[in-house]
Amino acid sequence: MTSGGHEAANGMTGRDGGAALEPIPGSPVVILVRPQLADNIGAAARAMANGGLFHLRLVAPRDGWPQERAWRTASGADRILDAATVFADVAAATADLHRVFATCPRPRHIVKPVLTARGAAAELRAVAARGLRAGVLFGPERAGLDNDDMAAADTLVRYPLNPGFMSLNLAQAVLVVAYEWWLADDQTPPRALMTNETRVARKVEVDNFLEHLVRELDASGFLRNKAKRAGMVRNIRHFFERGEVTEQELRTLHGVVTELAHGRGK
Amino acid sequence: MTSGGHEAANGMTGRDGGAALEPIPGSPVVILVRPQLADNIGAAARAMANGGLFHLRLVAPRDGWPQERAWRTASGADRILDAATVFADVAAATADLHRVFATCPRPRHIVKPVLTARGAAAELRAVAARGLRAGVLFGPERAGLDNDDMAAADTLVRYPLNPGFMSLNLAQAVLVVAYEWWLADDQTPPRALMTNETRVARKVEVDNFLEHLVRELDASGFLRNKAKRAGMVRNIRHFFERGEVTEQELRTLHGVVTELAHGRGK
Repeated sequence: MTSGGHEAANGMTGRDGGAALEPIPGSPVVILVRPQLADNIGAAARAMANGGLFHLRLVAPRDGWPQERAWRTASGADRILDAATVFADVAAATADLHRVFATCPRPRHIVKPVLTARGAAAELRAVAARGLRAGVLFGPERAGLDNDDMAAADTLVRYPLNPGFMSLNLAQAVLVVAYEWWLADDQTPPRALMTNETRVARKVEVDNFLEHLVRELDASGFLRNKAKRAGMVRNIRHFFERGEVTEQELRTLHGVVTELAHGRGK
Repeated sequence: MTSGGHEAANGMTGRDGGAALEPIPGSPVVILVRPQLADNIGAAARAMANGGLFHLRLVAPRDGWPQERAWRTASGADRILDAATVFADVAAATADLHRVFATCPRPRHIVKPVLTARGAAAELRAVAARGLRAGVLFGPERAGLDNDDMAAADTLVRYPLNPGFMSLNLAQAVLVVAYEWWLADDQTPPRALMTNETRVARKVEVDNFLEHLVRELDASGFLRNKAKRAGMVRNIRHFFERGEVTEQELRTLHGVVTELAHGRGK
């Protein structure tokens, strides 16, 4: 499924081998301009799949197309490569598109709107919502897009990254756009309690546990100092009320208290 | 500087060879747990540098440390590798930290706060602002973090990506966190007009050009239909007022109009 080493999955995988990969309506076209290495084309396809991009166009790939090596680095994103199309130049590859974005790190002598990757993702979603078709140009390894390529674009995309060290390979450059495109329509809450098989407890359940705990602490004599009792109970309560607790955790805690109390004096 | 192929720079480079790489105060520690391939350690360092991360810790790297291959894939992020430290286990690697995040794609049977990469970046910035030190665990290639690793973390990080195909390599997983961490403090406007040597024109300059144009169009007879003149002028105005125009563009347009008018009848 994956090639070795660099392309290993880091356990960050939820893929089904890519069999279910299909175009998402409105997803932009990724256009690799004069890519040199088939490895990178495959890695770019893999990066696209992570963000739900599907349409891949190749402008004058140096070593021709198809190249078997691309499928080896695609990590299962075969369908994207199977459907990829080849064009002789940027004009042909963008002829049917309404909007063309070009990724470039430090445009000079160019007067054109420039978006961050996040801004570009929002714009790509907005363009798609109007029924228009957009593409994003990525330049060749090392050299990047030339001035003629850039002139074919109506919008530039520039990633705001460490100006003292900006060095993305082709697949990483594609990944940033794919990632932002996916997130531009993602509803995942930025913070949640992962509960899986259980559920977040209601306050009454927390109160029931606290009553159980305090009852046993009274019985054990831990709260025998009447003057300090209220403050101690409040501190204990603050600890168990710090954020969300699950129903399963409360059952465990009930068990811990019962066991400790039952074992007392043995 | 870079190794070939996969690691080529795609022209997305602004680096100075990494000579200027230095720790940014408050930046979190990246902790690679049992990484297998030195190539991936180097690529992770490169990914870190893009987002201004500097502190790298390695837990029980399979092939020992240092490994010359890592420097070859780091694309100049040598200082990060030079400063990397090795630990026997996760407990030792996290002992001095106040907060430990763990990246994992699909946590099961775990009850813990789970953040998106973007949510994690905001939290990491907030933690740093309180003077606390945080680290992020990344699991070994393929296997990912095991349950004991995850238990050492107080917070999980899960990237919201295409559930039908999520497959990031180690360096890409690191890049997403580094990218989000950098952007969490980035002020780049999501949309701007790239102007470089020129500047955005003031409305009076646009008006001056439009007066010039209309004067010549009147002289040429293009606006001779009195009934339609106002509407035609308005349409032309709408075209040239569509968004920002630069002072340089206006000078060019003045020249175009003058040349066309001057050449008329020749």
